[in-house]
Amino acid sequence: MIALLSDFGTTGWYVACMKGVILARCPQARLVDMTHEIPSYDVRAGAFALAAAAPWFPNSTIFACVVDPGVGTRRALLAAQADQRLFVGPDNGLLSLVFQRAKRLSLVQLTNRRYWQPQVSHTFHGRDIIAPVAAYLAAGGTLRQLGPVVKRYERLAMPTIRHTAAGFIGAVVFIDEFGNLITNFPSTLLERRTACRLWYKGHAVRVVSAYQEGRPGELVAVPASSGYVELAVSMASAARRYHARRDDRVELRATS
Amino acid sequence: MIALLSDFGTTGWYVACMKGVILARCPQARLVDMTHEIPSYDVRAGAFALAAAAPWFPNSTIFACVVDPGVGTRRALLAAQADQRLFVGPDNGLLSLVFQRAKRLSLVQLTNRRYWQPQVSHTFHGRDIIAPVAAYLAAGGTLRQLGPVVKRYERLAMPTIRHTAAGFIGAVVFIDEFGNLITNFPSTLLERRTACRLWYKGHAVRVVSAYQEGRPGELVAVPASSGYVELAVSMASAARRYHARRDDRVELRATS
Amino acid sequence: MIALLSDFGTTGWYVACMKGVILARCPQARLVDMTHEIPSYDVRAGAFALAAAAPWFPNSTIFACVVDPGVGTRRALLAAQADQRLFVGPDNGLLSLVFQRAKRLSLVQLTNRRYWQPQVSHTFHGRDIIAPVAAYLAAGGTLRQLGPVVKRYERLAMPTIRHTAAGFIGAVVFIDEFGNLITNFPSTLLERRTACRLWYKGHAVRVVSAYQEGRPGELVAVPASSGYVELAVSMASAARRYHARRDDRVELRATS
Repeated sequence: MIALLSDFGTTGWYVACMKGVILARCPQARLVDMTHEIPSYDVRAGAFALAAAAPWFPNSTIFACVVDPGVGTRRALLAAQADQRLFVGPDNGLLSLVFQRAKRLSLVQLTNRRYWQPQVSHTFHGRDIIAPVAAYLAAGGTLRQLGPVVKRYERLAMPTIRHTAAGFIGAVVFIDEFGNLITNFPSTLLERRTACRLWYKGHAVRVVSAYQEGRPGELVAVPASSGYVELAVSMASAARRYHARRDDRVELRATS
Repeated sequence: MIALLSDFGTTGWYVACMKGVILARCPQARLVDMTHEIPSYDVRAGAFALAAAAPWFPNSTIFACVVDPGVGTRRALLAAQADQRLFVGPDNGLLSLVFQRAKRLSLVQLTNRRYWQPQVSHTFHGRDIIAPVAAYLAAGGTLRQLGPVVKRYERLAMPTIRHTAAGFIGAVVFIDEFGNLITNFPSTLLERRTACRLWYKGHAVRVVSAYQEGRPGELVAVPASSGYVELAVSMASAARRYHARRDDRVELRATS
Repeated sequence: MIALLSDFGTTGWYVACMKGVILARCPQARLVDMTHEIPSYDVRAGAFALAAAAPWFPNSTIFACVVDPGVGTRRALLAAQADQRLFVGPDNGLLSLVFQRAKRLSLVQLTNRRYWQPQVSHTFHGRDIIAPVAAYLAAGGTLRQLGPVVKRYERLAMPTIRHTAAGFIGAVVFIDEFGNLITNFPSTLLERRTACRLWYKGHAVRVVSAYQEGRPGELVAVPASSGYVELAVSMASAARRYHARRDDRVELRATS
């Protein structure tokens, strides 16, 4: 099973080419589209979506991932086993959230051209390197054949949480399709606290357990399915209403 | 075979999570994306798309459907057999057009947590309940195990057709991707009438049998593939040209 | 294996209906979404995407293609074997770029209603003719059964390259998801020339081998993965920055 994640969009032929290459090399591969609409070049959004979805897939799934603004430059390409799953993609932080959470991690750099397309373009390594390498792994190939073992990988610069006297200062790290603002506060942070509020752009935000518990138009904080606290307006886009942007500051303070 | 319909969009990780959960529990399941771009929270649009497409799928297809603005509140979740096909989704009208057309219908409410994810979030029942229940059915499970039989379900408030002296008064119920206006007049209504016109926003609209029979820029009425009469402008968006909105009034009158 | 390409978008039920019809008639068919977001009625964009992606698919893949502004009029529908792959779609130029590049080509016109849906609408031949014909071919059917052999097909009016004293005059034929401008200059044209520049809207454009070799904001020309020279701005949309349109003139001139 090969799961595909990219910023190629769905209006062009890029995704189709990758699928064709995989199926031509490994006809029995099962392809699963995760998403191809990561915003163009947005490595952080890709990393976040990958880390949120990958743990739900079966063991031994192979993830072929392409959000690759550096294609054709000297950035490396990696294949990795993180716990029971395999990942192929550029070494630009896209895979790093998955790597950081893995208990066991083996990495190789893709250098063995034998498993690539015979002709490699400078602009489309998804088709010419990542797809054939994923097909090779799906057909039973091993990481070792693909290139030398490496130890380091690029990490993503993500906002961190600071502990203060009043509580915690964090940030919006992602805005989803519904306009919900996903913060970097793990949901567990709320479980351990009896009474607290979030503060966002001068508004005190009540913590509830489902989006719908908010009153019409009320901004609420929900320990959400992503594993992080989200700011949301029931049936509306919090992002649009509050002109939210990624990296906006969010605070968590005890109320008592 | 599991067909997926949702309003999750394709830019995030929600769809990918559902696919992962299904494939982890039933690796041999075949997934088919119907659409994930039902407008956010638009239960009517979801119900309409599902009812239009489901009859074309093979018998015994399982439809996992998530347009669920009430997630985390007390709305029920249902599994159903409608004629030869199986449906899993929220009891908010999303499945009701399919149910109304079914000759045989069995419904159960999802209450047996044994077939859910061990941890159920308040915000993502698609991943935590609907996906594992669909996987259970795909692996040969039966409705009965999932919860108690129920008889009633939520119906959608849809515009109805009124009969008048002059003909019929109906409405635009849906606007499609091409800007065609799908009315609630069944195409059969036109077949039985020798000479008639539709009236929309003061314009008399000629009935033709293919979009292309309209003159450039002409609004025409077509008994269309959805089984309903559609208002369309050849090669252009009728919706944009006429500032159309759902529930706009449409009349059908005999010309002789 | 059946690969699907259309302009149906992904918000409605059109794609789902086609998939349902295929799977009901040939349950073992493997469906691969190429793209359903070809701009509405844009036959040239569909032809371009199909020709760019099809060669990467395995032999014997069946391509079911629907960008069909003429549905319901007298335009013909075709099934074809082009080299080792099969194609089904309208005779409006959509398949013509594939046909022109094929070494061996057999064409039939779809006339045998036995392989269509029993009821054929005037507005949705994708569901009623193209899908069942593709399913028939996937189940092992032969072209001959589908209708009479034809020799001619509609060709697309595409901009051509003119040779001048100074070099070549070509055009932008397509604009991709990233805002890159794909010209009709084959990449091989640059390989054979030692020193040249492209000219676009009065700007001299440097030829580089990867998008990233451009300086920030610089428009560069790249012999790209499509097989054609593309004009691109690193990490930005060349289309938006230069208000590019399809058919914009592009020149290639030697610098020495």
